[in-house]
Amino acid sequence: MNTTRTINLKNRPKGEPKLTDFDFSTAEIPKLKEGEVLLSTEYVSVDPYLRGRMSDAPSYIPPFELNKPIASGIIAEVLESKNTNFNQGEFVSGMLQWQETQVAKADGLMKVDPEKAPLSAYLGILGMTGLTAYLGLTEIGKPKKGETLLVSGAAGAVGSVVGQIGKILGLKVVGIAGTNEKVEMLKSKFGFDEAINYKTTENMTEAIANACPDGVDVYFDNVGGEISEAVLFNINKFSRTVNCGAISVYNNTELPKSISVQPFLVKKSSSMQGFVVFDYVDKHPEGIKQLTEWLSRGKLKYTETIREGFENIPQAFLDLFEGKNKGKMVVKL
Amino acid sequence: MNTTRTINLKNRPKGEPKLTDFDFSTAEIPKLKEGEVLLSTEYVSVDPYLRGRMSDAPSYIPPFELNKPIASGIIAEVLESKNTNFNQGEFVSGMLQWQETQVAKADGLMKVDPEKAPLSAYLGILGMTGLTAYLGLTEIGKPKKGETLLVSGAAGAVGSVVGQIGKILGLKVVGIAGTNEKVEMLKSKFGFDEAINYKTTENMTEAIANACPDGVDVYFDNVGGEISEAVLFNINKFSRTVNCGAISVYNNTELPKSISVQPFLVKKSSSMQGFVVFDYVDKHPEGIKQLTEWLSRGKLKYTETIREGFENIPQAFLDLFEGKNKGKMVVKL
Repeated sequence: MNTTRTINLKNRPKGEPKLTDFDFSTAEIPKLKEGEVLLSTEYVSVDPYLRGRMSDAPSYIPPFELNKPIASGIIAEVLESKNTNFNQGEFVSGMLQWQETQVAKADGLMKVDPEKAPLSAYLGILGMTGLTAYLGLTEIGKPKKGETLLVSGAAGAVGSVVGQIGKILGLKVVGIAGTNEKVEMLKSKFGFDEAINYKTTENMTEAIANACPDGVDVYFDNVGGEISEAVLFNINKFSRTVNCGAISVYNNTELPKSISVQPFLVKKSSSMQGFVVFDYVDKHPEGIKQLTEWLSRGKLKYTETIREGFENIPQAFLDLFEGKNKGKMVVKL
Repeated sequence: MNTTRTINLKNRPKGEPKLTDFDFSTAEIPKLKEGEVLLSTEYVSVDPYLRGRMSDAPSYIPPFELNKPIASGIIAEVLESKNTNFNQGEFVSGMLQWQETQVAKADGLMKVDPEKAPLSAYLGILGMTGLTAYLGLTEIGKPKKGETLLVSGAAGAVGSVVGQIGKILGLKVVGIAGTNEKVEMLKSKFGFDEAINYKTTENMTEAIANACPDGVDVYFDNVGGEISEAVLFNINKFSRTVNCGAISVYNNTELPKSISVQPFLVKKSSSMQGFVVFDYVDKHPEGIKQLTEWLSRGKLKYTETIREGFENIPQAFLDLFEGKNKGKMVVKL
């Protein structure tokens, strides 16, 4: 029987995850049963939301089990198939395990076409990343032409797509990021109207007011924490906040405190709503269609940070929390 | 020329408002012009939201001017009319000044019928209070039969109506209030399924969990602050919070801090939205019609705290922040 390398969750991280929270083991590859496929992993997606699944607090998806493989979005090649829908040599996308080789049931797998876009794009701009940006912005943000869209974590995988979709939809788009290089890239590459480096800005409230002279109508929030406090002082009447993530506080061991949002929401008849792309599976096909069309017309650009090597997956994940990625972070095997 | 007593805003309150923030003056009553009416004040509404208009921070309605009369919902009798729509001896409701007698333009005045309901009801259950409860719950809370509704400030004017409407709509209703007497009243008079005294409860998170074993689907929040923190740990997936008020923090001179809501909203795909009844004027007629129907069928009960005497209006207002009212607080002249 053949074996494969596997990355397991060894400990539930306390605060910042560490390399020692993961371990590598060698697992047996079970025999292929009727309806299953044997897959060889090509690209592995590492995402901030995986941090949530590593702790056992109740969340929108069940936690990973200790000493079992971690799973995330993966692109794999079909090595062998006992399923009539998939043929050897085809590529698939799915929620798969951090293993070099694995047997998988076919439901939940989606064929991807390497002719239409690079394989890694199906983990990013044409995958969960693009769908999160598109559906979060349109379903929760409900933007109207001419409004001002502010994006935090703007140079991240989701943020950079949100901003570009904002421009396509006719909004004024302002981004917040953490280095001058990222700020420059937001404007020159992704077409943001303005961008703010929060690490070198002393008064974020004032900086947002200057960048958004008409106030903020839609705030696409990937970070939470202090940046989002500063945004509160700049929201317009009837503004909408898309709470897509709160990476700034995911590793906090104590519950983070912030300025109370309630008085601001009452004063401005403003809304905040949590968004998780998994809640909108019925809209995924429509979203992928729209994203593919924009991509093929050259209206969407994306940045990837591609690391190499199965053994480097945990480090790539940790680097997300240091902001070491530009755009979508994937690991190529 | 005749004169009338007037209550003016003397100082913008710092923190808790004080009697010395108000002063009484004698103003002249101008001559009645074509289209105007001369009104004698019968009932004056005092409401927590007036605190907001006493400070000059930007809000949903402009601040009161210093040394000018304060205004609120008032029921008045028409003493003299130069407007064909209003006759002497009729009663009207409107946003009027804290004066014993005043001249007013007729637009913005609504006739009220003392045969259909007691005059004071038009400031409460058939006025802004009832509309806030009805429209806040239905438009933002979007309750579905069988869901659990949690109401803070439940013994207050708005809260007690919210709970009753919740029961009419087929929800499980739980209230939070600050005395055992109020808790008892919520259950015996207003039909709440459960009620919690937050002042005698050590662990609110646990108490809410016990009272809402299926979690909280709709949270109608009148108070903000620590109570609302405890609610966060009990919200269900796709739950909606109606941010109707934050009386617990209105008098804070520093911006209050709370547990960050963003991670909870993301985990639960949950929403929070500020609600102000003035944003829904187009739905007021429909709302008043529905409330009048429920009231006439005996499905809605209400409690009033009626103080007497023009000179006691400021104290009645201050007492709101001490929770000295049961239900709607009005002052009868």
